[in-house]
Amino acid sequence: MTDAPITHHTFTIDRVYPADAARVFLANSEYAAKRRWFAEGDGFEVLEYRLDFREGGLETARFIAPGGVHVTYDAVFRDIVPDKRIVATYEMSIEGTRISVSIATTELETVDGGTRLVFTEQGAYIGGEDQTGSREEGSRSLLEALGRELER
Amino acid sequence: MTDAPITHHTFTIDRVYPADAARVFLANSEYAAKRRWFAEGDGFEVLEYRLDFREGGLETARFIAPGGVHVTYDAVFRDIVPDKRIVATYEMSIEGTRISVSIATTELETVDGGTRLVFTEQGAYIGGEDQTGSREEGSRSLLEALGRELER
Repeated sequence: MTDAPITHHTFTIDRVYPADAARVFLANSEYAAKRRWFAEGDGFEVLEYRLDFREGGLETARFIAPGGVHVTYDAVFRDIVPDKRIVATYEMSIEGTRISVSIATTELETVDGGTRLVFTEQGAYIGGEDQTGSREEGSRSLLEALGRELER
Repeated sequence: MTDAPITHHTFTIDRVYPADAARVFLANSEYAAKRRWFAEGDGFEVLEYRLDFREGGLETARFIAPGGVHVTYDAVFRDIVPDKRIVATYEMSIEGTRISVSIATTELETVDGGTRLVFTEQGAYIGGEDQTGSREEGSRSLLEALGRELER
């Protein structure tokens, strides 16, 4: 907790995956699949990963990022429509200091060639440093990792 | 739960109150004061109001709005800096159907003549009907009620 200023920012990322909506939804809701693309990454050491995928259920990830920084991600699923959408709120902390409170909306739509995923993050970013660029970059990397998961 | 579309929208309301920041913060954190301006309103019947003002604590309001509609408000306090800011996430439901997931940020700043309050709502509004105007209007009414509370 600091009394640093808050920056409010929204961004949207739009991707089409060559997979049907049920497959994309499963990769977002099933423990082993989501852990693979969401928590496990090159250079990241996962200390804990939990997923209770239901409205009101929690998702928790604790990991050591490249460079040795401890990061925690704590989410609550708020609104789930199978194969259509997932709305979650989440907090991120670095070394025990909260850096953001966000709403993450994932919407799925069947299109020619597969499934269009629209990810919208609405964030309240805490602290003096501008996190908005790195958060969007991180989210893009995750959605690329989801693409690799869907090719398995 | 419906599969209606989601509208993402952010609005900010800026007010100056002729009271010091500690007084404005107290009106946002103390049960009796917050219940008066936030839950009790002309034509509203309060069925339940709970406030556990701490990070991770819950605020719950259930009421019958003018016209007989049952409304529930469920919030979690996420980030609190005394006399400075309050960040909460909340859901609203009407007749048991979730209509929104939001982040509400209240920031206080000492200025000439009192305290400037900046309220920022980042909302994911669920359902076909446009809620963005009515939510902003409702928030403005609440901040007017806070002004009356501060004149007590």
